[in-house]
Amino acid sequence: MSGPPENFAWLLRTRVGYLATVGADNGPHIIPVCFTWAGDVVWTAVDGKTKSSNDLQRLRDIEATRSIAFIVDRWDEDWSRLAWLQARGSATIIPDGKEWDKAVAALKSKYSQYSDTPVDGPVIRIDVSRWVGWAADAV
Amino acid sequence: MSGPPENFAWLLRTRVGYLATVGADNGPHIIPVCFTWAGDVVWTAVDGKTKSSNDLQRLRDIEATRSIAFIVDRWDEDWSRLAWLQARGSATIIPDGKEWDKAVAALKSKYSQYSDTPVDGPVIRIDVSRWVGWAADAV
Repeated sequence: MSGPPENFAWLLRTRVGYLATVGADNGPHIIPVCFTWAGDVVWTAVDGKTKSSNDLQRLRDIEATRSIAFIVDRWDEDWSRLAWLQARGSATIIPDGKEWDKAVAALKSKYSQYSDTPVDGPVIRIDVSRWVGWAADAV
Repeated sequence: MSGPPENFAWLLRTRVGYLATVGADNGPHIIPVCFTWAGDVVWTAVDGKTKSSNDLQRLRDIEATRSIAFIVDRWDEDWSRLAWLQARGSATIIPDGKEWDKAVAALKSKYSQYSDTPVDGPVIRIDVSRWVGWAADAV
């Protein structure tokens, strides 16, 4: 692969995505996330705004199974405008180092809010093995 | 339980939620869904707007594992306003009958779009075993 399907890549300009992980008990877990991406990789970070047991859940799940689904979408009351782009793949926890620095720089560039809410946890890298785009009408 | 935590129930007024299922391969799958709810049950339906292989995926996953996570959230550029409510539980496919009728009536009542886009597939019932609410600030 070389990135998401061209006619769905615009959905990745959205500000929030949804990340699903699967725990050792095979139960899914889902949270909204800020993210950045390039090619077939999506990065998100455990940041200051999201300190909760659910973040530990997210990381525990990834340690247990690595399986990930991620989605960005456009909701609209005009259902002919509905569209989404799903990524499935595997996740890796990046506690620090060059890739952490680069991902956090990209997140700060996309979200000015990170100037007040620092990233103080690991970065999660999603290696996308499959993109699936859907739209109610042709996009 | 008797429904979602009181101070997070307002999030269920949102128009779109995100549903994560887990397949027989333990890989998660996630899609945006229209939904209705009451107490500890959330209903969503396979409708005319969502005919794709992903709907079959959703149903296949539920047949395989029944494990479900569902989330509704409020995104805001002001991160002090961020909030979400997650439900975890098990899913049941309702192909027809009284519960299907009731769920579809509730969906039609919430979404006027269903007058043009009929529900022509099964209803999915989610029995919530755990609600988790999160907000950046107190709600």
